[in-house]
Amino acid sequence: MKAEPMLKEDALKGKTIVVTGGGTGLGRSMTKYFLELGANAVICSRKQDVLEKAAEELMQETGGQVLPVACDVRKYNEIEAMLKATLDKFGRVDVLVNNAAGNFVSPTERLSHKAFDVITDIVLKGSYNCTLALGKHWIEQKQEANILNIVTTYAWTGSGYVVPSACAKAGVLAMTRSLASEWAKYGIRSNAIAPGPFPTEGAWTRLFPKQLADKLDPVKRIPVGRFGEHQELANLAAYLVSDYAAFVNGEVVTIDGGEWLYGAGEFNAFDQIPQEMWDAMEKQMRGKQG
Amino acid sequence: MKAEPMLKEDALKGKTIVVTGGGTGLGRSMTKYFLELGANAVICSRKQDVLEKAAEELMQETGGQVLPVACDVRKYNEIEAMLKATLDKFGRVDVLVNNAAGNFVSPTERLSHKAFDVITDIVLKGSYNCTLALGKHWIEQKQEANILNIVTTYAWTGSGYVVPSACAKAGVLAMTRSLASEWAKYGIRSNAIAPGPFPTEGAWTRLFPKQLADKLDPVKRIPVGRFGEHQELANLAAYLVSDYAAFVNGEVVTIDGGEWLYGAGEFNAFDQIPQEMWDAMEKQMRGKQG
Amino acid sequence: MKAEPMLKEDALKGKTIVVTGGGTGLGRSMTKYFLELGANAVICSRKQDVLEKAAEELMQETGGQVLPVACDVRKYNEIEAMLKATLDKFGRVDVLVNNAAGNFVSPTERLSHKAFDVITDIVLKGSYNCTLALGKHWIEQKQEANILNIVTTYAWTGSGYVVPSACAKAGVLAMTRSLASEWAKYGIRSNAIAPGPFPTEGAWTRLFPKQLADKLDPVKRIPVGRFGEHQELANLAAYLVSDYAAFVNGEVVTIDGGEWLYGAGEFNAFDQIPQEMWDAMEKQMRGKQG
Amino acid sequence: MKAEPMLKEDALKGKTIVVTGGGTGLGRSMTKYFLELGANAVICSRKQDVLEKAAEELMQETGGQVLPVACDVRKYNEIEAMLKATLDKFGRVDVLVNNAAGNFVSPTERLSHKAFDVITDIVLKGSYNCTLALGKHWIEQKQEANILNIVTTYAWTGSGYVVPSACAKAGVLAMTRSLASEWAKYGIRSNAIAPGPFPTEGAWTRLFPKQLADKLDPVKRIPVGRFGEHQELANLAAYLVSDYAAFVNGEVVTIDGGEWLYGAGEFNAFDQIPQEMWDAMEKQMRGKQG
Repeated sequence: MKAEPMLKEDALKGKTIVVTGGGTGLGRSMTKYFLELGANAVICSRKQDVLEKAAEELMQETGGQVLPVACDVRKYNEIEAMLKATLDKFGRVDVLVNNAAGNFVSPTERLSHKAFDVITDIVLKGSYNCTLALGKHWIEQKQEANILNIVTTYAWTGSGYVVPSACAKAGVLAMTRSLASEWAKYGIRSNAIAPGPFPTEGAWTRLFPKQLADKLDPVKRIPVGRFGEHQELANLAAYLVSDYAAFVNGEVVTIDGGEWLYGAGEFNAFDQIPQEMWDAMEKQMRGKQG
Repeated sequence: MKAEPMLKEDALKGKTIVVTGGGTGLGRSMTKYFLELGANAVICSRKQDVLEKAAEELMQETGGQVLPVACDVRKYNEIEAMLKATLDKFGRVDVLVNNAAGNFVSPTERLSHKAFDVITDIVLKGSYNCTLALGKHWIEQKQEANILNIVTTYAWTGSGYVVPSACAKAGVLAMTRSLASEWAKYGIRSNAIAPGPFPTEGAWTRLFPKQLADKLDPVKRIPVGRFGEHQELANLAAYLVSDYAAFVNGEVVTIDGGEWLYGAGEFNAFDQIPQEMWDAMEKQMRGKQG
Repeated sequence: MKAEPMLKEDALKGKTIVVTGGGTGLGRSMTKYFLELGANAVICSRKQDVLEKAAEELMQETGGQVLPVACDVRKYNEIEAMLKATLDKFGRVDVLVNNAAGNFVSPTERLSHKAFDVITDIVLKGSYNCTLALGKHWIEQKQEANILNIVTTYAWTGSGYVVPSACAKAGVLAMTRSLASEWAKYGIRSNAIAPGPFPTEGAWTRLFPKQLADKLDPVKRIPVGRFGEHQELANLAAYLVSDYAAFVNGEVVTIDGGEWLYGAGEFNAFDQIPQEMWDAMEKQMRGKQG
Repeated sequence: MKAEPMLKEDALKGKTIVVTGGGTGLGRSMTKYFLELGANAVICSRKQDVLEKAAEELMQETGGQVLPVACDVRKYNEIEAMLKATLDKFGRVDVLVNNAAGNFVSPTERLSHKAFDVITDIVLKGSYNCTLALGKHWIEQKQEANILNIVTTYAWTGSGYVVPSACAKAGVLAMTRSLASEWAKYGIRSNAIAPGPFPTEGAWTRLFPKQLADKLDPVKRIPVGRFGEHQELANLAAYLVSDYAAFVNGEVVTIDGGEWLYGAGEFNAFDQIPQEMWDAMEKQMRGKQG
C-alpha cells in the first residue's frame, strides 16, 4: 500500500492555513500536503530552530510559502502575535488546524496534578486560545473560515494510561461540536479528525521487552492489519478544510482502520477461533436441531 | 458480592408488566423481582410448558400473580391475543419489557440470509410488534405507561460474529429513542438496558477447549473482574420501569462492569505492563529531563 | 455555492460499483460521479423502465458503462442474479453501495405492523441480503472490496414520525460497524454516510400550508443555512469507496451542515437572542460583580 | 407528580460521601438524600458561611453527620486539606461526587480566554484535582470506593452559548470513562449523570422578555413536558454511588425527560402537525396507491 494524494490540483489555492504543532510528525505531513495543494502555511510550536528548519524543508519540497512562528499556545498574547505575523505576511488567514498536543503515558495514580495541568493547558487551553483569537478576528472581518481539530479515538470512550490527554481531547471535541452549531452563522465551520495509530518515531512499543511488545502490539488491534500512512491522514484533513466539505460541519471523522470498534465489540475476539472449530460447532448444532 | 434487592417495598404495586421471554434467564429474574415489588406479570414465549412451569414457580416464590401466554412475537395477531388475555386477567397493562431474543454466534459469511431473517424477526420485528400493539392500546386508553427494551452493548458499536443480533438490537435501540421523543406526549416513556456478560447456563466459552476458553474468557475483559448478578440487572430494570424513573426517557443504561469501554479505549491493555517497568520508564524520563 | 467534483481523474478507474437505488435521487448522483471517475456502475431497483432510462442518460452524460438490473433487494435470489449479471458484464465487482430505501412519515400509532415490515424489509433486509451475497463472493474470491451504506442522522438518535426507517437504518449502521471489525481481515472495508437534508423533488414541507411549512422548514435547523448539494454527497461517497480511504473503516461520516448537533445542543436556540439583549445582560453582570 | 425517595432504608449506611458544591442546588439535594440513607457527608465550596448554614440545616433535617469544609477545588493543597479533615472526622471516605461547577451563558466571541480558564479550572481541573487526591488515597489504602461525576447532556453533543462548560464537562466525562477502565482493578468504580433541566432559583429564561422566554422555554423542548424534580436526580445519584450499582461502571446516565434526543431527531418537530393534517395526508396517499 502506498497512499497517494487525492484532491485535484490547487484545491486549497489562495488559502492560508495555521497548523499548530505543524513542524513535526502528523502536523508536518498535513502542512506539506496543504502546500502541495496551493495553500500558504503558518506553522507554530515552541521551538524556533525546529520550526525554521521544517519551514525551509517544506518550502523546498513543495514550492509553497511557509511562515514559522514560535509561540506557546498556552499564552494568549503569543497567539495574538502569531495572528498578527500571519496577517502581515499573508494578508489573511482561512483555516486553523489545532494539532499541537502533549501526552503522558502512565498509570494515572503516578501522575501529579501538575502533570494533568501541563497536558490540559497545551491541548485544551491551547486549542481554545487559538480558536478564540482567530474566531474573533474572522467574525469581526465577516470572513468565511474553518477550524479542524485533531483529537483521538479515545476522546469519546476515554482510555486508561493517557487520562490527561483523554480529558483534554474530549474538551476539544466538545468545542468542535459546540462552535459548529454556534459559529456556522458567521460562515465558520468546525470539524475534527480522530486518528488511530500512525507510525511515528520512537513508537511506544519499541521501548518494551519483546514479550510485552507482542502483547501490546497495536497492529494486532487494527482490523485492516497495518498502521495508517501520513498521506492518508493528510488526504482526509485536506478534504475537511477545503470547500469540498462545505456541508460537513460538527463532524469528527475517525481514521483508525477500525481499531476502536474492534476493541469495543463484545465478540470480535472470536477471530481467534480457528475454522475447524467453527466447522465442529456447526455440525454439533445441526445435530441438535435434526 | 451478593447483590440485594434495592427498591422500597411495593415500588411496583398495582402495575401489570408484560415480559417477553420472561420464562427463562434474565427475563425470569427481572420478572421475579417485579413480582416481589408488588407487580402482576405476564410472561410470554413460544413454549407453553416452559412458561407454565415458570409461572407456577414464580408465583410460589413471590406470592404474586403471573399469567403465562404462549405466543410468537413475530405474529401480530398472537400479540393482540396476548394483550386481550392480559386485559381479561388483570384489567390493565402498564409496562412492556421487550426481552425476547435470539442469537447465532458465527462468522457472518457462514450464515444464510434466512439465519439473518430469523434473528431480525424475533428481535426487531418482535419488539415493534409488541410495542405497536400495546402502544396503540395505551394511546387509545389515554393511559400512562412505559417500555423497557433489553438490548446489548454492541447495539451501538456493532460486533463481529453476532451480526444479525447487532443489527436487530440496534434497531430496537433506535425505536427506544424515537418513541421516547414521539410518545412521551401521551405519557409513554421508553428506555433500554444494555447488559454486558451475565452468567447463564451453557455459557459459550465452556464449549471451547481450555486454551481458547482462556483467551476468550469474558471475565478478563471486564474491569470490575466478574460477571454481573441477575439481581443487579433486576434492580436497574425495576428502577427504570418504576415511577421513580419518570424523568428518565430515551436513555439506554449500560450495565457491563465497564467491559465495552475497556475494549474500546486505545491504551487500556497497558494494564499488562508490570509496576517495575513503569518504575523503570519513570526513571528514564526523569533522566532525560534533568 | 456551486459544489465541484474533488477527486483526481480516474480515482475509481477499473472499479465496478453496485449502487442499489442507483437510478434516482442521491443514488443517481453518486453513480454519476463514480462513472466520471472511471468506474463501471451497476444500478438496481424494482422498476426496469426507470432504471434503463437512467442508465442511458448516465452513459451519455459520462461516457461510462452502466448495467441496469431490475431486482427486489428483499429477495435473495434476485440479488444473486444481479451479482451474476454483474460478473457476466464486467468480470468483477469491487464496491457495494447500499442506498435503496423507503420511508413513511407518519405518527407511529397510525402505522400498521405491515408498514413497519415494508420499511424494515427494504432497508435492513435489503442491505444485509446484498451484503451477504457480495461478501460471500468476495471472501471466496479472496478479493479486496468495500461496502458503503447510506444511513441517516437519526440512525443513532432515533426520530419520531419516521420510526420504521430509524429502526432499519440503525440496523444497517450496526452491520457497517460489525463487519468493519469482522471482515477487514479479508480485505473488505465497511463505512457509512449519514446525510442530512439534501434537496429532492417533492420535498415534504412543500405539501404543507405555508404557516406550518415555515415552522418545519428544515433549512432553519441547519447551521450552515442551506441544504446540501448532491455533488457534496457524491464527493464524500467517492472518497470513502476509493483506495484513498483505505484506513477509514467502520466509520459513519455525517454530512448535514451541523443539523443534528444544532438540535441536540441544549442552548443552541439562544441564537434567537438579539445582540442588544446580550449587551444588556453583560452590563447587568458587570454591575453585579463590581 | 411528587417524586419519592426510592432506595431501602440504610442503603448508604456507613459510607462517607464528599460532595463538591454540596451546599446549594442539586448538590445539596443529593447530599440530603445521601444523609437520609445513612451516609455521612462532607460538603465543600468556597463560601464558608453558606456551607456552615447548609450543614446545620442538613443535619437538622436528616439527623445525619455533615462536615462543611471551605476549599477551592482549583487548589490541590486545599483538596488535600479537605481529605485530611474528612479522615479526621469520619475515619474514612468512600465516595466522591464531583458536582461543583460554573458556567457563563454567552456568545463565545464575547468571552475572553480568561473566562474560558475560569470555567475549565473549576469544572475540569477541580474534578481531576479531587479525583487524584482521593484516588491516590484509596489506592494506597487498598479500599473500595466510587466516583460520581455530574456532567451535562451537552458534554457529548456540545452546545453553543455555553462552550467553556461544554469543553470542561466533556473532559470530566472522558475522565469518568477512562478511570472506569483503569481503576476498576483497584475496586474503584466511576460513573456520571447528565442532568437535563432541573428547576433552580433565578432560572435563565425568567430574565428575558416574555416573547423570548416563550420561544426559549426549555419545558417545550422536553418530551415529558416538565422539569425534573430534585428527588429524581437524588434517587439516581444514590443508586449509582451505592453497592446496588456495583456492576455499573463507566456509564453516564442521562436524566432529562428526553430533551436532547427530542432536539436531535430530525423529524421530531413534526409534533406540530395537527391530527387533521395527518388525516388529510393519509387520505391523499391512499388515493395515490389505489
